[in-house]
Amino acid sequence: MLKPSLKTKVTRLFGLENPIIQAGMIWCSGWKLASAVSNAGGLGIIGSGSMYPKELEENIKKCQANTKKPFAVNVPLLYPAIEKHIEIIIRNKVPIVFTSAGNPKTHTPKLKSYGIKVVHVVSSVKFAKKAEMAGVDALVAEGFEAGGHNGREETTTLVLVPAVAKAVSIPVIAAGGIGNGQAMAACMALGAEAVQVGTRFVASAESSAHTNFKRYLLEAKEGDTELVMKQLQPVRLLKNDFYKEVKAAELRGAKKEELKKILGRARAKKGMSQGELNEGELEIGQISGYLNNILPAAEIVANMMQECIETIKRTHRSLS
Amino acid sequence: MLKPSLKTKVTRLFGLENPIIQAGMIWCSGWKLASAVSNAGGLGIIGSGSMYPKELEENIKKCQANTKKPFAVNVPLLYPAIEKHIEIIIRNKVPIVFTSAGNPKTHTPKLKSYGIKVVHVVSSVKFAKKAEMAGVDALVAEGFEAGGHNGREETTTLVLVPAVAKAVSIPVIAAGGIGNGQAMAACMALGAEAVQVGTRFVASAESSAHTNFKRYLLEAKEGDTELVMKQLQPVRLLKNDFYKEVKAAELRGAKKEELKKILGRARAKKGMSQGELNEGELEIGQISGYLNNILPAAEIVANMMQECIETIKRTHRSLS
Repeated sequence: MLKPSLKTKVTRLFGLENPIIQAGMIWCSGWKLASAVSNAGGLGIIGSGSMYPKELEENIKKCQANTKKPFAVNVPLLYPAIEKHIEIIIRNKVPIVFTSAGNPKTHTPKLKSYGIKVVHVVSSVKFAKKAEMAGVDALVAEGFEAGGHNGREETTTLVLVPAVAKAVSIPVIAAGGIGNGQAMAACMALGAEAVQVGTRFVASAESSAHTNFKRYLLEAKEGDTELVMKQLQPVRLLKNDFYKEVKAAELRGAKKEELKKILGRARAKKGMSQGELNEGELEIGQISGYLNNILPAAEIVANMMQECIETIKRTHRSLS
Repeated sequence: MLKPSLKTKVTRLFGLENPIIQAGMIWCSGWKLASAVSNAGGLGIIGSGSMYPKELEENIKKCQANTKKPFAVNVPLLYPAIEKHIEIIIRNKVPIVFTSAGNPKTHTPKLKSYGIKVVHVVSSVKFAKKAEMAGVDALVAEGFEAGGHNGREETTTLVLVPAVAKAVSIPVIAAGGIGNGQAMAACMALGAEAVQVGTRFVASAESSAHTNFKRYLLEAKEGDTELVMKQLQPVRLLKNDFYKEVKAAELRGAKKEELKKILGRARAKKGMSQGELNEGELEIGQISGYLNNILPAAEIVANMMQECIETIKRTHRSLS
């Protein structure tokens, strides 16, 4: 008997075996993680937001050397060297680009003219419609529970995904709070055609997050992340000394300027790449409070698929 | 052919036709709404938190006169006249009690000794385990997107429900962000045995919310609610003048005392029952941003059931 599989508009759009996409994350998702996820039948994404152009190119080349399957690059549109990144992506024939944090109108037509598929990350119906108008092929609808930078509306995945799926006609990928097959099956019910998973893949053998950060996130308990810095760019952080400093400032009514000063520079690199758990900024999602192991990426994909398929069958059996 | 139905541990526990529970909500859910939902095959709940003992008793008697089906009363355990409420519930043979905001140990044994089924509302795995230990029959796991008072951990429904379902062996009811059958089906996938729906029933013909409040919540757009008052009891509010005053105070670093003064007394009554949209406190969930009609409660139940069943079938068809 054939193993059951889950084919959707997104698996067909990208040529994937499984509708699981590994989120492009600064300091955590280089070629190693991306190629491992792609080899496991998901879509691996290189997070270019923490890379100089030269590093991005190296990562793309190594990813290509390590997988024959589709992979993508995530590009934060506000990245200073964005033009250079786009050029490298085109030159190296990256088949898929995920864009976030910026206006999708600016680069989508160019990328598409080279046959590159473009997906844009949104946190509201309003921006979902704008991105569809800009001509992207699919959307990531990312909820409040996601790690890292996040929407101002604070709409959760459960509320956001059905609303976005209803408002647009292009495929929707759910993100935020998805770390197991139950949540994955739930997102398919909400109308998603795939899920994008971040935090669960930070806690993978192949993620480039510092070992200290990986270990610390396994210790996180429920409620140990919080969305802060809402006056600047809202970001979900794991609670540590740096978080406490930010939070105390916010509670005493600190203004933007003071918050910028506390944030300083290269805090995320310090925490997530260099493993400085007190001084560093640790971007992670709510599900970190419920994770308790580091697994190979392929096992994460296989477990989620199995749980998801079992969940869909179990839910269907409850109909009578 | 029989209409397909959804039978779960919760429909069996309470003797319901459908696994849809209408949340007990201050100023919005009296006997009229509760009996309408129960008559539609769901579980209606009288929200006693905004009622004097005498009013509660009247509501129970009218509910009994208007439905032969099971209904419940919601009791916030920190309510000042709690002993009186419990006495009235027992005397009037209310079959099911939902408790929230307090320690379930205190009243559960007494209620159970009268054959009353007890359900406790939690926002974390930690409190779910404690409530199970206290002997409750089922739990409501309520996420961050829910209206009104809310957990400090800010865990969303998508993240919370599978974690709670895994941690306890009693049935779990999902709450927060559920206003359509897609979200309902998603919650069944997450491991819930029923859903508790608040906001969607505020916007019902039978809800006792003031017409002004009902009209205003239909105008709400995405991002128009926010969880504030985190230093006191976190509460999700619809944005209005009162909200703005609270928010401005929080941004300038106001302490508990000042926030208490701004809150004052009877603000929720003013807003939700008396329809004073500027001065009043309007407690509502995130899905208010996506609602656009007032419907009879029976129609809400029927629509959600149909959408939920269709969603479960659609999701199952995507397996191959």
